[in-house]
Amino acid sequence: MPLLVMKFGGTSVATLDRIARASKRVAREVANGYDVIVVVSAMAGKTNELVGWVEETSPLYDAREYDAVVASGEVVTAGLMALRLQEMEIPARSWQGWQVPVKTTSAHSAARIEEIGTEAINAKFGEGFKVAVVAGFQGISPEGRVTTLGRGGSDTTAVAFAAAFGAERCDIYTDVDGVYTTDPRIEDKARKLDRIAFEEMLELASLGAKVLQTRSVELAMRYKVKLRVLSSFEEYDPNAGTLVCDEEEIVEQNVVSGVAYSRDEAKMTLISVADRPGIASAIFTPLADAGVNVDMIVQNISEDGRTDMTFSCPVGQVARAEKALAQAKDAGSINFRELVADQDVAKISVVGIGMRSHAGIASKMFSVLANEGINIKVITTSEIKISVLVDRKYMELAVQALHDAFDLDKV
Amino acid sequence: MPLLVMKFGGTSVATLDRIARASKRVAREVANGYDVIVVVSAMAGKTNELVGWVEETSPLYDAREYDAVVASGEVVTAGLMALRLQEMEIPARSWQGWQVPVKTTSAHSAARIEEIGTEAINAKFGEGFKVAVVAGFQGISPEGRVTTLGRGGSDTTAVAFAAAFGAERCDIYTDVDGVYTTDPRIEDKARKLDRIAFEEMLELASLGAKVLQTRSVELAMRYKVKLRVLSSFEEYDPNAGTLVCDEEEIVEQNVVSGVAYSRDEAKMTLISVADRPGIASAIFTPLADAGVNVDMIVQNISEDGRTDMTFSCPVGQVARAEKALAQAKDAGSINFRELVADQDVAKISVVGIGMRSHAGIASKMFSVLANEGINIKVITTSEIKISVLVDRKYMELAVQALHDAFDLDKV
Repeated sequence: MPLLVMKFGGTSVATLDRIARASKRVAREVANGYDVIVVVSAMAGKTNELVGWVEETSPLYDAREYDAVVASGEVVTAGLMALRLQEMEIPARSWQGWQVPVKTTSAHSAARIEEIGTEAINAKFGEGFKVAVVAGFQGISPEGRVTTLGRGGSDTTAVAFAAAFGAERCDIYTDVDGVYTTDPRIEDKARKLDRIAFEEMLELASLGAKVLQTRSVELAMRYKVKLRVLSSFEEYDPNAGTLVCDEEEIVEQNVVSGVAYSRDEAKMTLISVADRPGIASAIFTPLADAGVNVDMIVQNISEDGRTDMTFSCPVGQVARAEKALAQAKDAGSINFRELVADQDVAKISVVGIGMRSHAGIASKMFSVLANEGINIKVITTSEIKISVLVDRKYMELAVQALHDAFDLDKV
Repeated sequence: MPLLVMKFGGTSVATLDRIARASKRVAREVANGYDVIVVVSAMAGKTNELVGWVEETSPLYDAREYDAVVASGEVVTAGLMALRLQEMEIPARSWQGWQVPVKTTSAHSAARIEEIGTEAINAKFGEGFKVAVVAGFQGISPEGRVTTLGRGGSDTTAVAFAAAFGAERCDIYTDVDGVYTTDPRIEDKARKLDRIAFEEMLELASLGAKVLQTRSVELAMRYKVKLRVLSSFEEYDPNAGTLVCDEEEIVEQNVVSGVAYSRDEAKMTLISVADRPGIASAIFTPLADAGVNVDMIVQNISEDGRTDMTFSCPVGQVARAEKALAQAKDAGSINFRELVADQDVAKISVVGIGMRSHAGIASKMFSVLANEGINIKVITTSEIKISVLVDRKYMELAVQALHDAFDLDKV
């Protein structure tokens, strides 16, 4: 029997009515001939309520107790959906993480799945059960305690089940109807993509297109799980949403797939750093130790043994970065004249698998921005992405101009 | 290290503030030198919310899914209390039923505890943990699914843990401050008892003094677990509440310990039943099959081969009893002239271990009621209890007169 994994997020199971609606979608896939593993989140708001109670009770909480409390939300949804499916005369039962079992590391609140037992659920399918409703986001540690995978972990649960059970596809039902060429709130010509490659989705996800959790995309790529993102609030359509898949499965493809942005960036420049072997390490090790997420790094050419070093990080981490660098200077491990922080920048990126084989994308991007009078402050590139920092006031303009120039509104 | 079991009901853990307050009581017992097993209910209202969701989703629900959903309430409280205790620097952790494990039968929603594993919790006490916070009301079936013990099951959980771990005492914290000689709302001279024997508590519990679940008292009696009922809303006092214990531990004891009542009784009389061997069985088997809880039974002396048979049952079951008896009559298995239901009666009982060795309690009870002009309709007796049915309008008067006559306001 072919198998499908369907994942419903918190807004898709927020009320009993919505659980009933999601159950209808499951029933339809059962009617289509599938065995189905459903992965559910907690009802919207429940996780926040539980987290609030934990934080109020114990600000520096024991993550093992946090996990025990917070994982209870998904257990409730799983039981209710199993009951709803039974009402529709579909043989179904709920599974908690420890029952499957979903074996994870002991890193509470940020555990990683190590192994999913398939025996018990497959035995139930063998007995004629059609649906296993799995509480997402949770597992069991080697010590026998309940773990959680961290926020958004239900996506990861779903992909991991799809990989473990060899599912034909993993459908992620959410409150958006797919992945867009850019944010429709900024560019109203933004177009939904029918397909996108794993690598592109990874770049877009980490750039703030918050449709899918990065970890779940990585996992899908590694195990070649076809991932579909679609809305649980639209009418049924077998071709709905966006399929995230291997690039070989994408027949027609624009060179650029999307334009992403990230609003809360800061640019930091160390002026007149003594240039010597090991200087980059001397700068970035204390930053990493202080928990600063450094993104782009640019080093100017050296002159008279000194250079300027520029990097970007989230705006909220500027103070932390300044403190770490000041301490390193005091300790004598680095030497610079001045540290300049520019907190009014945004990052704009164009992403596309096709860039690997097409030259000239970078120069086109730069000339489009120049034509709009937008100054580029920092540039970084990867095989399938070009990112620039610009003044934040130009962010929307830059996104719109690039979306236009690369014809992203056209297939 | 001596061990104590402390159980907190839903109103005692209804909010984070109350969980903090309950935790302080636990901390005090730890300071007194005890290892403590705390058994918690769900926060007041949570279980009803979860049950409501289940019933709305599936009116004839699968009890296995009901149990999975409903048991989550206690899990949340257990985690929160463990966190609160940790904040007070007391080494504590939470335990779900399946983690302990609390092994039960597969009778979902009404499971019975078969065995409690003591190894894992004792190992933690050995490592220096001072408190195990156990989610009450739940266990795990032989099939590995979550079970619940039925409403009020947390009392039973607490007593079962006290028995399994050989606890010095099991303290049941609730919203009343102990067991009274009668209901203080009816008789303002009602006095809190310092001690009461298991057998007496059983009679009082089943008669509607809703302080403790009957099953938990039975279990405590069987395993000789000292049980203390006390309020979680009063100041700390090592002698607070009422101790339910073996009668040998009660030094001074009135002959009568309490006067109980039950308001919603009905008296049913089958007039002119053909008296033959097996007639009682022919009458009461269909009633049992119809789910009627028959309490008192009185058979008149036989005359000309016919007799009258009187029994009592809850008022709410009168219609069901009438239907069952009419069907049995139609089927020819019993034969009677008329069925008379009197729905305006109440049951009054005096209870006391001392009655075993003291004659004259029954005659004193009857004369007290006679002096008040109260007619007795039915009488039943056990070794430690005398119950009568009277017109409901005399209920309060009867309770007050008996409380006075047996000097229950005096030690």
